[in-house]
Amino acid sequence: MTFYSKRDLQFQLFENLRVMELTRHAYFHDHTKEIFHLVLEAAEQIAENYLRPLLTEMDRNEPKLVNGKIKVHEGMKAIIRQFGENGWINATFPYDQGGQQLPNTLHMAAGFIFQAANYSASVYPFLTTGAANLILTFGSQELIEKFTPNMYSGKWQGTMALTEPDAGSSLSDISTTAYPTEKEGVYKIQGQKIYISCGDHDACENVIHLMLARIKDAPAGVKGISLFVVPQKKVPFGESNDVLTEGIYHKMGYKGAPIAHLMIGSNDGCEGFLVGEPHKGLSYMFQMMNEARVGVGMNAAAIGTAAYYSSLSYAKERPQGRKIGEKDPSKPQIPIIQHADVKRLLLFQKSIIEGSLSLLLYCSKLGDIAHAAEGLEKEEASLLLDFLTPIAKSYPSEMCCLTTSAAVQVLGGAGYTTDFPVEQYYREARIHPIHEGTTGIHGLDLLGRKVPIKEGKALQLYGREIATTIFHAKELSGLSGFAEKLEKYMGKAQQTTLHLLSKAADKTDAFLADATLYLEYIGILTIAWQWLKQGMTAQEQLEKGSSEQEFYQGKIMCLRYFFEYELVKMDALGKRLLSTDMPTLEMQEDWF
Amino acid sequence: MTFYSKRDLQFQLFENLRVMELTRHAYFHDHTKEIFHLVLEAAEQIAENYLRPLLTEMDRNEPKLVNGKIKVHEGMKAIIRQFGENGWINATFPYDQGGQQLPNTLHMAAGFIFQAANYSASVYPFLTTGAANLILTFGSQELIEKFTPNMYSGKWQGTMALTEPDAGSSLSDISTTAYPTEKEGVYKIQGQKIYISCGDHDACENVIHLMLARIKDAPAGVKGISLFVVPQKKVPFGESNDVLTEGIYHKMGYKGAPIAHLMIGSNDGCEGFLVGEPHKGLSYMFQMMNEARVGVGMNAAAIGTAAYYSSLSYAKERPQGRKIGEKDPSKPQIPIIQHADVKRLLLFQKSIIEGSLSLLLYCSKLGDIAHAAEGLEKEEASLLLDFLTPIAKSYPSEMCCLTTSAAVQVLGGAGYTTDFPVEQYYREARIHPIHEGTTGIHGLDLLGRKVPIKEGKALQLYGREIATTIFHAKELSGLSGFAEKLEKYMGKAQQTTLHLLSKAADKTDAFLADATLYLEYIGILTIAWQWLKQGMTAQEQLEKGSSEQEFYQGKIMCLRYFFEYELVKMDALGKRLLSTDMPTLEMQEDWF
Repeated sequence: MTFYSKRDLQFQLFENLRVMELTRHAYFHDHTKEIFHLVLEAAEQIAENYLRPLLTEMDRNEPKLVNGKIKVHEGMKAIIRQFGENGWINATFPYDQGGQQLPNTLHMAAGFIFQAANYSASVYPFLTTGAANLILTFGSQELIEKFTPNMYSGKWQGTMALTEPDAGSSLSDISTTAYPTEKEGVYKIQGQKIYISCGDHDACENVIHLMLARIKDAPAGVKGISLFVVPQKKVPFGESNDVLTEGIYHKMGYKGAPIAHLMIGSNDGCEGFLVGEPHKGLSYMFQMMNEARVGVGMNAAAIGTAAYYSSLSYAKERPQGRKIGEKDPSKPQIPIIQHADVKRLLLFQKSIIEGSLSLLLYCSKLGDIAHAAEGLEKEEASLLLDFLTPIAKSYPSEMCCLTTSAAVQVLGGAGYTTDFPVEQYYREARIHPIHEGTTGIHGLDLLGRKVPIKEGKALQLYGREIATTIFHAKELSGLSGFAEKLEKYMGKAQQTTLHLLSKAADKTDAFLADATLYLEYIGILTIAWQWLKQGMTAQEQLEKGSSEQEFYQGKIMCLRYFFEYELVKMDALGKRLLSTDMPTLEMQEDWF
Repeated sequence: MTFYSKRDLQFQLFENLRVMELTRHAYFHDHTKEIFHLVLEAAEQIAENYLRPLLTEMDRNEPKLVNGKIKVHEGMKAIIRQFGENGWINATFPYDQGGQQLPNTLHMAAGFIFQAANYSASVYPFLTTGAANLILTFGSQELIEKFTPNMYSGKWQGTMALTEPDAGSSLSDISTTAYPTEKEGVYKIQGQKIYISCGDHDACENVIHLMLARIKDAPAGVKGISLFVVPQKKVPFGESNDVLTEGIYHKMGYKGAPIAHLMIGSNDGCEGFLVGEPHKGLSYMFQMMNEARVGVGMNAAAIGTAAYYSSLSYAKERPQGRKIGEKDPSKPQIPIIQHADVKRLLLFQKSIIEGSLSLLLYCSKLGDIAHAAEGLEKEEASLLLDFLTPIAKSYPSEMCCLTTSAAVQVLGGAGYTTDFPVEQYYREARIHPIHEGTTGIHGLDLLGRKVPIKEGKALQLYGREIATTIFHAKELSGLSGFAEKLEKYMGKAQQTTLHLLSKAADKTDAFLADATLYLEYIGILTIAWQWLKQGMTAQEQLEKGSSEQEFYQGKIMCLRYFFEYELVKMDALGKRLLSTDMPTLEMQEDWF
């Protein structure tokens, strides 16, 4: 069964995003369009042959903790081996590290295919990539040589070990402690970590944790947190490193990937290796987390995409009811895709997932530019990506809870049963507004940090990019109305932002109380912008008389749908954001 | 753990709804406030002692089909016996039927407690009530005597057997066939039914299906559907009546109640008994379905309520983060309920569930008036209830998917695990926008049927009731601003409705294309009205200097929250409903 659209992914990358532009940078110079196509083909083959067949099985047969070791689906070994042997884990890394210098944009596009096929299975190698990247970027040559080769090959699993029982959203409260030893850079680690994705399992031979901990007597708060490599088994001889699996979490969805509760150094036998300098761990981790956050948005969009295609195929095949006004019960029933309300549920999904995918790939390209370019181009790409990251993480995460719900609704009663995968997608989508920073945290990040950053420079860049799109769209017949509408909403958003900023000085509580709504507000504007861009690309093709009229007409309809049904939500949110009544501040605990 | 608020339920019934007014009708004359309190106490005891303890267990141990028989949790026998022995199943029925002539409003309030405690377990007896009520209302004395006593006692299960593989939303396509026999009123039934809740299980001795079927050679469409009593085992001797359980559905949630696929008369041995007159089955069923639809809204609100209290207690206990602006990391963390965004997530839940409960009990009271009053009062109550039914079914159903999601979000990562019940509530809430008519069907019902009914008389009654509330609220200091706001939105809604109706004559497609949005639009208005009513009741108590300031302040804050954050959504929906661009009509199947 179709779980994504190859045609749309190619549209997004090559037509809309013009990803080939990246090859003008020296780092990506060797790549050609043919190579990118081959990469996507290869991704599709792994997805179809290895990941997709286990989608349901991995959900029904959760990982188990047996005698202190987590057992995962036995198919995971072959999947991870595929990722390792085919160079996916370090594909974006430099040639001199055995990598292929593949743009992250392509890696994300391939990830989108894997995630749409089987989200749980896709998580394992992506975590390893993130962890290896941290060692590579901030670790010593010794650490790189000691740990990364077996991570690249898929022999070892990588993780990001942040959360503790008392430190979830509040990372500054981490209490896992690192005690200096006589060996430089080597520490004894003690503490516990919870919710560690792939924190232990039997499909790899070792687990390499990139762990946040506080060196003994370090300053309190974020300024005293350091980053360590903490292997589950000692290297090279494989003795236990005293990282014990205390428990496994059972979850609503995303069941194929194990989430572990780890006890570290309970027997005083855990060695960790400092990455980079002391006390800089959180800033190192955040560089990876920003990528991971865009990655979470991609996960959500991918699950939403799989649900969309599942509901689309059902809607085309399921006969039920007749056209409105057709009173003759002897006429055959029509496929439900012909009902306006079902088309609405499908257009809703399509406009959200393709709008999100467009934003996410755009962010990935900004990341590639920030990595490969120099000077102003690098700086601006980096700043704009910072601004867009909370949006790219949260908008797809929140909205794909709703699009997967719409997919369930298209199937009706059948959608609520386990006979179809949409209920699984609905359960799996729900994790994304939580992990890698809850939506509330990202609202604070956008309004409290990214909007004011560098005296509003990120916000200006964002406005400039949208204004450029509007400028060009106004010149295209058929799109000028949409351009003007977006311009109007952009203007309102600027006023609303200024209004909120005016509270920042002396009423911080009131400034940030509705930050989550502001995030949603700017999220809608951002996706409307992405739709105007896609609409321009499509309109040009339609005017050229492209032979793919259906595909491009679908894009124009989504643009129209998004502006008609989604963009207007800014009216309600904007009204709220300008209001002076603050019930969430005045509400008292004992009034609930 | 708290799963509902006794205080709020009493507020809703006795203060806000003034349920005691019902006792002025002869049918309810014997009841006193003390009796109603005893009823609620008794409900709470069953809920706490029998239903609540099995909430998680019933979810984790799904019903199984073993040798053609569905086995459910063994605790269900005792639960059903409790309902039967304590007179819950026929509590609302007349004295001469062994009932207690309890107002449906009280029965619904008790149901709310049961459903909040354990939704799956609550379903069994409520289905039996509905089925018995159909027999009692439309069946012959013979059928009543033959079937209902064992249903009242809980010995036998009742069901509503409507859906077939080709007839879900489109009930007119039912093809199960009834062949006349030599015995009058007795038919041979052949066909199949799917998604039959409690359609077979081992906690009762027999299952009595109230089944829709088409008498051979009956007219096509809705006008040829009849209603039959079809027992699983023949009465009185218990031989098989050839109703075989072909399968059991596995579902995302609501797992404790079995949903069966039934083959009827495959061996030519199924006898069914005609209820009432031939070809009137759908109209009989709809009288019950209307009650069942308000009941579904109540289920959703009850699940939402349980999730709310679960997240509230977590928010009070979980320390995480510090006040905005507090930079000292050595200060202790604060309970998350002190964060504005968490208060927003809680106020959202509270305002939706208490607003919904208010509407649902109001509808129940209208049902009681329609049953017990005479003349104009009866007629108007009945018509207003007809109008409100799609709203009372759909608003809580749709919104409690979002409130249970908010409950998950309050708990963060913990909420996604099975360590807390909120993920179960999230899964259970999702059925309600589907069963007893999908939201899309109810949108068509509201805009296509209820708005134009009797030349708009139902709509006028609705407007009159809201206008009355506004009139009185304007006189209360502190509430006049809310009254004026509601008046403004009411005016807009009237214009929007007229605009839509203007399309009804020659553009039926365009008239109904956004009926689901119209349903949401009117739903918000309706709940805002309910909040203004609750606000008035609370404001009066506050002005009187009630000793329960906290409770009533909570009501006022919810009123404020709803008007600030929810009512404004009508701006966006209204803009869309007035637009002339119709992408859902123009979208073509092959453009997806």
